[in-house]
Amino acid sequence: MIYYDNAATTRPNEKAVARAGIYLTERYYNPSALYGGGFAVSGDLKKAREYLLSRVADPVSYELTFTSCGTEADNQAVFCCAKRGNAVTTAGEHAAIYASMTELNNRGVQPRFAKLNADGSVDVDDLLRLVDDKTAFVSVIHVNNETGAINPIADIAKKVKAKNPHVVFHSDGVQAYGKIPVRLSKEIDLYSVSAHKIGGLKGTGALIRRKSLALAPFVYGGGQESGKRSGTENVFGIMEFCYAAEEKFASLQEDAERIRALREYVRAGLDREIFTRLSPESGTPYILAVSAAGLRGEVLQRMLSDNGLIVGTGSACSSKHRFSRVMTACGYDEKTLDGVLRLSFSPENTREEADEAIRILNATARELKERTK
Amino acid sequence: MIYYDNAATTRPNEKAVARAGIYLTERYYNPSALYGGGFAVSGDLKKAREYLLSRVADPVSYELTFTSCGTEADNQAVFCCAKRGNAVTTAGEHAAIYASMTELNNRGVQPRFAKLNADGSVDVDDLLRLVDDKTAFVSVIHVNNETGAINPIADIAKKVKAKNPHVVFHSDGVQAYGKIPVRLSKEIDLYSVSAHKIGGLKGTGALIRRKSLALAPFVYGGGQESGKRSGTENVFGIMEFCYAAEEKFASLQEDAERIRALREYVRAGLDREIFTRLSPESGTPYILAVSAAGLRGEVLQRMLSDNGLIVGTGSACSSKHRFSRVMTACGYDEKTLDGVLRLSFSPENTREEADEAIRILNATARELKERTK
Repeated sequence: MIYYDNAATTRPNEKAVARAGIYLTERYYNPSALYGGGFAVSGDLKKAREYLLSRVADPVSYELTFTSCGTEADNQAVFCCAKRGNAVTTAGEHAAIYASMTELNNRGVQPRFAKLNADGSVDVDDLLRLVDDKTAFVSVIHVNNETGAINPIADIAKKVKAKNPHVVFHSDGVQAYGKIPVRLSKEIDLYSVSAHKIGGLKGTGALIRRKSLALAPFVYGGGQESGKRSGTENVFGIMEFCYAAEEKFASLQEDAERIRALREYVRAGLDREIFTRLSPESGTPYILAVSAAGLRGEVLQRMLSDNGLIVGTGSACSSKHRFSRVMTACGYDEKTLDGVLRLSFSPENTREEADEAIRILNATARELKERTK
Repeated sequence: MIYYDNAATTRPNEKAVARAGIYLTERYYNPSALYGGGFAVSGDLKKAREYLLSRVADPVSYELTFTSCGTEADNQAVFCCAKRGNAVTTAGEHAAIYASMTELNNRGVQPRFAKLNADGSVDVDDLLRLVDDKTAFVSVIHVNNETGAINPIADIAKKVKAKNPHVVFHSDGVQAYGKIPVRLSKEIDLYSVSAHKIGGLKGTGALIRRKSLALAPFVYGGGQESGKRSGTENVFGIMEFCYAAEEKFASLQEDAERIRALREYVRAGLDREIFTRLSPESGTPYILAVSAAGLRGEVLQRMLSDNGLIVGTGSACSSKHRFSRVMTACGYDEKTLDGVLRLSFSPENTREEADEAIRILNATARELKERTK
């Protein structure tokens, strides 16, 4: 099986799983426990926290709080910051932000959604138009999880704060962290990340916060994570996240270059009579969205899976509607929307696999085209 | 090392970890993915859900939603049910309920805390007095995590509903599930459970809900868990929880009897001049709280740890105050509160260990007593 659905989830990094195994056997203590074993685990979490934070932000100005997933981190940002007035986001957000923002309607806060450009990036002028002196919160996804478009969040945050300096600015960095170079600029207050997109486990994420921003807890209880997120820490998941991230960050640039070449190689090999590219060239190397216009993406996806190639159609988290909400907001026609496939890579993907993947993609799409004539 | 802090967290069940290992290697797919691998994982989660639910409730009337921990399950119960009027709970709750209830003050809902009996169980008459026609939510912990007292939740829920049938009744079952027999009666609407107290992993819990109760999500996003809890499911944690629970439920009665005998054996071996029992005999077999009145519990705890015995002092989740909030509510004097130790067992604990534990406890307490004379 060739696995090209790494933006949905990655295979856990074997080495990281093996290293973290000790937290399932010897170091199983509760990190809040006030004896040697508890202190040791608590110390290990602290080191993991520092490492994961330092890769993308200045530890003097930022802190990292572990959460149960990227979705929870996004929810904390929305519900603990958008408490009055209006909140501005984009039509290109992952469901974790989109659904939370929509829920704000029921909580007396008006959500506003900025338009997208054709490649899935946000129309910055439209976003800025939506920001006013009643705006409490702005959230812009860093890397669009469906098209791979990269939003220039540092620049956007700066412009948003120039218009209203009281805004809390958040970005969902789930598809960026550990994949493309990230350095949080001072206008970015909050940043969400997830473990299972980079060889970590499902069930672990984090919210990075500028220290000078006061943030209410989302989950209340025993006061873990400096009171920002109660509940016994998922020690195994956190340590494995740290070890998986170490692997990623050690070769982030080289991997990104190699994967970019791989992406273009796959793109070049696809039958131009069938597939149209939707992802921008300037987007993340890790995502290539294409459309086999006129064919049904889900049908093609299942046939591909039967033939040995696993790909996505849209975000796995929002696969319940006929057309992708985000792709629709990019302005594509129904035929194009119907045929969307998302190929998403990991550093484990090889050139040999790519040749096979191209062969399967072209042959399967031709077969389906014949069948539906 | 002898480990008597199993109410804080247990060592993950080795067999369950090994069985669940396949979800870190071959079955790593996103359960929302619409191809074979995703469907298979989703089906496995469904089976785990059914198993874990069926052990304590009728699957015709109840549903189970996975959460990231017991604390999150408790938070969902409180914040999604207590939206107006007042909410009634006990002074004996775990911090996950206590802190959430306290936060209700900031959300326009009045929290009310019922008194405790000396053994840590709730004073039911006081609780019922607090329930009125403006009460939206009542939460009573099933097994007190510090004293081990068992609250008769079926009976309490019945009386609460007789007074106000519109109340949503919740119980935190974290120290009960997989340890003592539980069968949810129809007056119990919500029940929280956790994996890592019964050989599961930190980072996995669940909220059991009577189907006829409409419950808003706590975490919004891609609509996982039938829309009740968004975010990619912690597949490894959930499957390991299921396998660990299978081990527990297979011998729940025998284990409970054996552990009850072990608890009484340890109790009988303790120096009566030093240690006073705080736990009721009728409480969970798994917890024995004692006090070495006049000695400092934390000091004793660290000395015991140095001597090869790990015990708790209070809930690991709330170990930041001098005296345990719950033990204080039981009405003990300061000297007794200072000397509290919690010994909490697992089926892995043996009689031979108990002899050694008794020896260490008596010798260490005597040593500390000498030193502090």
